[in-house]
Amino acid sequence: MAVVDTFRAAGYKVISVDIVENAAADFNVLVSLDNNWVEQEAQVCQGVGAALGGDKVEAVINVAGGWAGGKASDPDWVKNADLMWKQSVWSSAISGTLAAKFLSSGGLLVLPGAKPALAGTPGMMGYGLAKAAVHQLVKSLASDGSGLPDLACVLGILPVTLDTPMNRKFMPGADTSTWTPLAEVGRIMLAWTQHRERFQSGSLVALVTAGGQTRMEAC
Amino acid sequence: MAVVDTFRAAGYKVISVDIVENAAADFNVLVSLDNNWVEQEAQVCQGVGAALGGDKVEAVINVAGGWAGGKASDPDWVKNADLMWKQSVWSSAISGTLAAKFLSSGGLLVLPGAKPALAGTPGMMGYGLAKAAVHQLVKSLASDGSGLPDLACVLGILPVTLDTPMNRKFMPGADTSTWTPLAEVGRIMLAWTQHRERFQSGSLVALVTAGGQTRMEAC
Repeated sequence: MAVVDTFRAAGYKVISVDIVENAAADFNVLVSLDNNWVEQEAQVCQGVGAALGGDKVEAVINVAGGWAGGKASDPDWVKNADLMWKQSVWSSAISGTLAAKFLSSGGLLVLPGAKPALAGTPGMMGYGLAKAAVHQLVKSLASDGSGLPDLACVLGILPVTLDTPMNRKFMPGADTSTWTPLAEVGRIMLAWTQHRERFQSGSLVALVTAGGQTRMEAC
Repeated sequence: MAVVDTFRAAGYKVISVDIVENAAADFNVLVSLDNNWVEQEAQVCQGVGAALGGDKVEAVINVAGGWAGGKASDPDWVKNADLMWKQSVWSSAISGTLAAKFLSSGGLLVLPGAKPALAGTPGMMGYGLAKAAVHQLVKSLASDGSGLPDLACVLGILPVTLDTPMNRKFMPGADTSTWTPLAEVGRIMLAWTQHRERFQSGSLVALVTAGGQTRMEAC
């Protein structure tokens, strides 16, 4: 939502791909949760292709969220892992297909990683493994022969904690000075789209916020 | 198959969990591909629990195989990624649940990784991301608080190419002196089960074969 607002304010046309409509976007492509991975891919490519009518895009940005915990002895951990896989890995793979089909030369593809998943995450095992899969996909898509257009820039953003209404609700009393504001995420996405502040393609870029200031760190 | 034979020859009782029956095993638990991840987990835990009748196991060894290629511009890459995820990640997560429920103190859990997935794999994107997820799961399961029993040893095995009939069929004329024999995999699994040649829990152990000799390397 914050990302859409930032791009709209900067004069971009935005296609939102989501399970619900985003009123701020120029076009909406809706995804049905009843569809499987391959069906979602077909649905999204068809919808985005129709909205573009032969045009290309400057950026494909995946900010699909979601978090769920669980260790191996928790009865629901596989159920949660399944949800994390669908939210992070399905959406990232489909973003890769969109970039192969519709991204312009030198365009930007951003996928949603997570800094904690660079190591073991015993209390949130499904979340960690899904994000680790996204991290490796960033490296694959950035490699020669991935099928992406020439000079495409593929980056993972690895937040620690985002300052979202959901996180404020579930972590009351937390030190929010280390949380990354969504407006800052929007600002970075816009800069990267405009070929500013880009890291080398294939980088995993952590967003580290301290004292209300956010800096980017390649990991 | 080779692993079952090795353990049987060494006097172990073996429960095979697979989509087909393994005649060499003492017990078979069959998995239905029509079931989803959570259903498979329930089916496998019920079957293994019934075979054990209150006993514990010394090792949970996942040698689920499978390979499929695909770059982002290939029409079938997401379909292949879905298959790779189910073969490697579903089976590894369920192995984690089995270990939490049935592994004895100090027991062994082995999950199937792949050395190429330590970097980008642009020509086999679904395979690479699934194996990267398994690698991170190894680290999670080896961490304090994962729900596994005390002193459990969790290791990933990362073959380069295994000397299987399938690989011989699909890569005729390849230099098989760098392929790892299945009997060597069985030998290593048995050694680790017997607390010999173990690496530190959480390690990803590459199997590197050259001139017909296989050595283990932590990556």
